[in-house]
Amino acid sequence: MGLTAEIGTFLADMQRCALPPEALAPVRAGFTDCVAVMVAGRDEPVSRIVAASVGAKVCSDRVLLDLVDAPAAALVYGTAAHAIDYDDTGLSGHPSAVLVPAILAESVESGGASGQTMARAYIAGYEVWAELIGRDKDQHHLKGWHPTAVFGTVAAASASAVIRGLDADRAATAAGISASLAGGIVANFGTMTKPFQVGRAAQSGLQATRLAEAGFTASHDAFEHDLGFLRAISPNRAVDTENPAAFGREWRILQHGVNIKLYPICYGAHRIVDAMIDVVQRDALRADGIAGVNVEMGEASAAILRNHRPQSALDAKFSAEFAMAAAAIAGRCGMRELTNEFVLRRDVQAFMPKVAVTPLTERSVDEPLHSPFDRVRITLRDNRAVASEPVYYPRGHFKNPVDAEALWGKFADCIDGAPIDARRLFDVLQEVDHLASVADIDTQGARS
Amino acid sequence: MGLTAEIGTFLADMQRCALPPEALAPVRAGFTDCVAVMVAGRDEPVSRIVAASVGAKVCSDRVLLDLVDAPAAALVYGTAAHAIDYDDTGLSGHPSAVLVPAILAESVESGGASGQTMARAYIAGYEVWAELIGRDKDQHHLKGWHPTAVFGTVAAASASAVIRGLDADRAATAAGISASLAGGIVANFGTMTKPFQVGRAAQSGLQATRLAEAGFTASHDAFEHDLGFLRAISPNRAVDTENPAAFGREWRILQHGVNIKLYPICYGAHRIVDAMIDVVQRDALRADGIAGVNVEMGEASAAILRNHRPQSALDAKFSAEFAMAAAAIAGRCGMRELTNEFVLRRDVQAFMPKVAVTPLTERSVDEPLHSPFDRVRITLRDNRAVASEPVYYPRGHFKNPVDAEALWGKFADCIDGAPIDARRLFDVLQEVDHLASVADIDTQGARS
Repeated sequence: MGLTAEIGTFLADMQRCALPPEALAPVRAGFTDCVAVMVAGRDEPVSRIVAASVGAKVCSDRVLLDLVDAPAAALVYGTAAHAIDYDDTGLSGHPSAVLVPAILAESVESGGASGQTMARAYIAGYEVWAELIGRDKDQHHLKGWHPTAVFGTVAAASASAVIRGLDADRAATAAGISASLAGGIVANFGTMTKPFQVGRAAQSGLQATRLAEAGFTASHDAFEHDLGFLRAISPNRAVDTENPAAFGREWRILQHGVNIKLYPICYGAHRIVDAMIDVVQRDALRADGIAGVNVEMGEASAAILRNHRPQSALDAKFSAEFAMAAAAIAGRCGMRELTNEFVLRRDVQAFMPKVAVTPLTERSVDEPLHSPFDRVRITLRDNRAVASEPVYYPRGHFKNPVDAEALWGKFADCIDGAPIDARRLFDVLQEVDHLASVADIDTQGARS
Repeated sequence: MGLTAEIGTFLADMQRCALPPEALAPVRAGFTDCVAVMVAGRDEPVSRIVAASVGAKVCSDRVLLDLVDAPAAALVYGTAAHAIDYDDTGLSGHPSAVLVPAILAESVESGGASGQTMARAYIAGYEVWAELIGRDKDQHHLKGWHPTAVFGTVAAASASAVIRGLDADRAATAAGISASLAGGIVANFGTMTKPFQVGRAAQSGLQATRLAEAGFTASHDAFEHDLGFLRAISPNRAVDTENPAAFGREWRILQHGVNIKLYPICYGAHRIVDAMIDVVQRDALRADGIAGVNVEMGEASAAILRNHRPQSALDAKFSAEFAMAAAAIAGRCGMRELTNEFVLRRDVQAFMPKVAVTPLTERSVDEPLHSPFDRVRITLRDNRAVASEPVYYPRGHFKNPVDAEALWGKFADCIDGAPIDARRLFDVLQEVDHLASVADIDTQGARS
């Protein structure tokens, strides 16, 4: 059986196979985190334009949308989920920003899928994405492809196929169709088109399953064919199209998990924020007692964090200097700090020139984009010098997993301002796999 | 100015620049031919499923659709235009199958664009496609990309930007957005997903211009960026991203034109159909007087024409043997021959075993997929041997252009069966650039 057919069989089996219980932890984290950033992102200009383009209206006190079909709803949810670049990461991309939107939209339209079905759909999409991206030795984004948009399209189709209960043949067709709908480029990072191409991946996945159900045909070797998906998007065609899939033998979600971002800024600055928060707390430092900060971080991250004197919240997302100022002054780096007002505060602006960056050339073995660790060294006005511990994985990384309290802190921060009962919604999402229906996400979120 | 910005400027200028008068011949041919194959293809199962998926209803006696928005209409038109694989070719793809659907849909929605505007939009889309594809030395479809779907998305956005009158900045944004929406793979050839990805290119192009108008942002180096469109889809990254565009200095449509397919079969068999029709006519041959046929053709075409004893119209599209039988028996190879009934006729089935193929290894300099020429050699029952002239370019190729009579023959064949006044519609489309409004295409087509 070829890879495309294996995907179809796996998706049909996913409707009732035995799941490893540990797989539910990343699912709960993914749903909880994604709903939070989706609510926080839905008032962004990009989300408003996309919602208007499909005639959708966002209700401020609800999570879900009325009055649009599921593919359109998935488009809006997905765009909002990625709009503020605060959603979780994994598999060289942002799995939940595609999967959760696709699943929420599909689950509503299919008459209220259960939490168990939604969890299976999430895992199905994750595993297909992992199986496909694991077959290429190279980094897709270095060729210009946005992996979230490209693999996300197939993952969304996969999740949708599970919810709709497609048989193996139609699920393979849906995946095959979705291979033709995948796209999205890195060059559009930093523009509205970036979150849009994520939302569109979710939308396209749902369109693919609908066409498969309606009798459409697609190649059942769409992925492994010489002129198929894997080689088309591959940087150097170093693609494994021969080996059988690991479906059913391995669960990639246990190996790779999802990484929760605890700060709404470039992921390259997360380790140094942890380091600064920890050292400030440990040594009870006051920001105005700090004379200078030296940041040791990977050279790639240092280059990406290119805004040294940011004047807006958007600029500040890519600034090591701002990250250090926020962590030292506010003791945190959340939604309340990522505002133009905070960025322009006199003490914040005065702090940033004290920060210098030393790029590290050594590379992590498992994450070659990063140095093995980042660290912060601080000189105080009284001439003492202190340093943080080296930080190998930021808090929220699957190897340094977030606890419920930290996740709740981010959640409350994101929901803040929306007339939604954040605590109830959080509690429901933390047990998403037990829900009787997707509709419970809405009703539990509403203030009673 | 970078390439993306040059595209924007070119599109804004296209609204009123001086056009070379010779550019209108391929536009008229493209519109006429595309409407014919669109009408012929709209009852195919793929077209019916796609139309139903967007709630569109095809009126048998009209060309255009009611009641759907322009992007959805473009999707349906484009799918139908490519559904029977009978649409024109050029620029390594099928320019009219994307451009004409996008333009018709956009022109209706913009309140009835004039023929002059539609012609400018066609040329704009063609030139942008040509400019982009001309920057890569390699064949995109050998990497797995379907050039019509990929470049077509940007071409459709370009055509739409001209009709909507976008300024240079917004047109560049629209093109940049469309770069993120492009996709479609060769592995899905031979399935419904092939015409669907062409229709979707037209749809995506129109969505891109709408988002640009609504205030969306996209990179103004989306095409030439190191991680941009051109390198992402490139087989080997042998891409020119430095040289200025030829816009305004050269008109690619004059250099490459469009090639009209006169037979609804694989383009690789077109030269031998010409050869057989000509020799049968010249020597007044009767099919039952033919003892054997030897076909000399390029090895690539010979390999693609893999069905030696086709039993259905779909199989027959890829059969040199069938092509020879139809040309010898019917003296033509049109829609009436591409039916299961004709394919299964006793005399047709009896003729096919008489045909042998001799692959030629020599390659054409300007079209390396083909041999320099194809030829047919015939042995008669009375032991005479006759041969066709060598055929370098099939009739309809831009270097052997179709005359109005031959185009009308195909047109009438395609429209046959629809309650549409084919002759009036043909005459209108042959002067499409003079129309007061796109609506004239519908009203002139209707039987009075």
